[in-house]
Amino acid sequence: MKNASRANPKEIRKRIRRGEWDRPTAGLAPGYAQANLVILPERYAFDFLLFCQRNPRPCPLLEVLEAGRSRTAFLSAGADIRTDVPKYNIYRKGKLERTVKEIREFWRDDFVSFLLGCSFSFEEALLKAKVPVRHIQENRNVPMYITDIPCRPAGRLRGPLVVTMRPLPPGKVPLAVRITSRFPAVHGGPVHIGDPSRIGIRDLQKPDFGDAVTVKRGEVPVFWACGVTPQAVVLKSKPDLCITHAPGHMFIADVTNEELVAWHKEGGFALPPKAPPVRR
Amino acid sequence: MKNASRANPKEIRKRIRRGEWDRPTAGLAPGYAQANLVILPERYAFDFLLFCQRNPRPCPLLEVLEAGRSRTAFLSAGADIRTDVPKYNIYRKGKLERTVKEIREFWRDDFVSFLLGCSFSFEEALLKAKVPVRHIQENRNVPMYITDIPCRPAGRLRGPLVVTMRPLPPGKVPLAVRITSRFPAVHGGPVHIGDPSRIGIRDLQKPDFGDAVTVKRGEVPVFWACGVTPQAVVLKSKPDLCITHAPGHMFIADVTNEELVAWHKEGGFALPPKAPPVRR
Repeated sequence: MKNASRANPKEIRKRIRRGEWDRPTAGLAPGYAQANLVILPERYAFDFLLFCQRNPRPCPLLEVLEAGRSRTAFLSAGADIRTDVPKYNIYRKGKLERTVKEIREFWRDDFVSFLLGCSFSFEEALLKAKVPVRHIQENRNVPMYITDIPCRPAGRLRGPLVVTMRPLPPGKVPLAVRITSRFPAVHGGPVHIGDPSRIGIRDLQKPDFGDAVTVKRGEVPVFWACGVTPQAVVLKSKPDLCITHAPGHMFIADVTNEELVAWHKEGGFALPPKAPPVRR
Repeated sequence: MKNASRANPKEIRKRIRRGEWDRPTAGLAPGYAQANLVILPERYAFDFLLFCQRNPRPCPLLEVLEAGRSRTAFLSAGADIRTDVPKYNIYRKGKLERTVKEIREFWRDDFVSFLLGCSFSFEEALLKAKVPVRHIQENRNVPMYITDIPCRPAGRLRGPLVVTMRPLPPGKVPLAVRITSRFPAVHGGPVHIGDPSRIGIRDLQKPDFGDAVTVKRGEVPVFWACGVTPQAVVLKSKPDLCITHAPGHMFIADVTNEELVAWHKEGGFALPPKAPPVRR
């Protein structure tokens, strides 16, 4: 896509909808939030919503669409989550069945859609503060690991926390903590710093998802809660059907990362959504 | 109860469980959070949980118990929400049927329980900073008003925001905003300051719930989102059955108000709940 990185979210979503963009969305629409997508039949929806409420670090809910609804209201005006994500994974009974560019033909009236925050938001802030982000430097996907930290179970859903890892020079660690802690709606600050074995990770060079990255001599591995956690937990419970975005192929919102910071400070999403009308 | 205000939460809950305390809980266990309670049959639970997710200012969720569960895990260890609240209201089809001291005999396996933050937490902080809280000075219930600000609907649930009002000398308003904004898990900062008619309130002396309080010449009315909002919205939808705490008769948690502040900053409830075990 020409000038994709400078195009606005509406324009990018239009091109995605037309099938003109089916690659990862990293770097597109700088400043704007991107979101993970999980779609489930209604009978699994309460457990999943409760799992997110209990595990907000890996599952920072940004918007939920009721059964059958495919249009977002909060994250964007008029986007259709059936067509506006570059690639979708369709899972049956926990197994990947196929990857598709749109899901209109699979849509059902009982589908409930969940949009969750994504660490792209805080990576942008790290880069601006000159904190190196290794997988971006090496043009790879972020390394992700299954830990032995249990998430809080909810109904039928249970499973371990999945984390991302970014190696940092020790002197950059406090700054990285401060910066990412500003973004609780997109995973927030690290959940662990240092020795990977303390959280059940055996070999940093063998991530469970994504790509391994170089860890230089003297660098400290820093771990953040990862949006793959809810997907892994849901698939483990083998629902009849589950549709997600394909990794790295996110939903691009009209809401900026800084707006998410302000909203979280306000206790979630501020009320009223707009100033009430003046009556005279 | 002798020395009730200095007893710890466990001790107070024990006395409540034994039927030795059935009065309002304001002022008990200073420093500890108190919570609103809403119990609904499972088929209403998704809509209510989603309503809270979309309207966190009036509905700051602290803990949700799955169908049939009556023991809290996060807010306290071992408390039973069927017996540990001083008084309960039982509503059928939206109408108050009776008020009781425990609900064991009404309990059903499909009951889902929701515990929500309460403004008692920030009132304590206001008093410590010498911000006057009029209804406490006048020994009344806080005045509550139905506004014309719509909450974000969720499923079958829709309705207006209900607010509490505390009149303040103009010079105290900025301090009150700063203090209460520190507590987003218990309604957070004001939703409106000044002219009541701007949010659909006609007469401050005629609150919709609670008691009227004196507004002195020159004082500014300040309005906060109120935990009565979710009750009002649920009852409007006329569920077969709904059980709540009786107003002012709250669940007393083992968690302190300052812990709630820290947890919210951590993006909700921090993970891991406890440090992972050291493996050698």
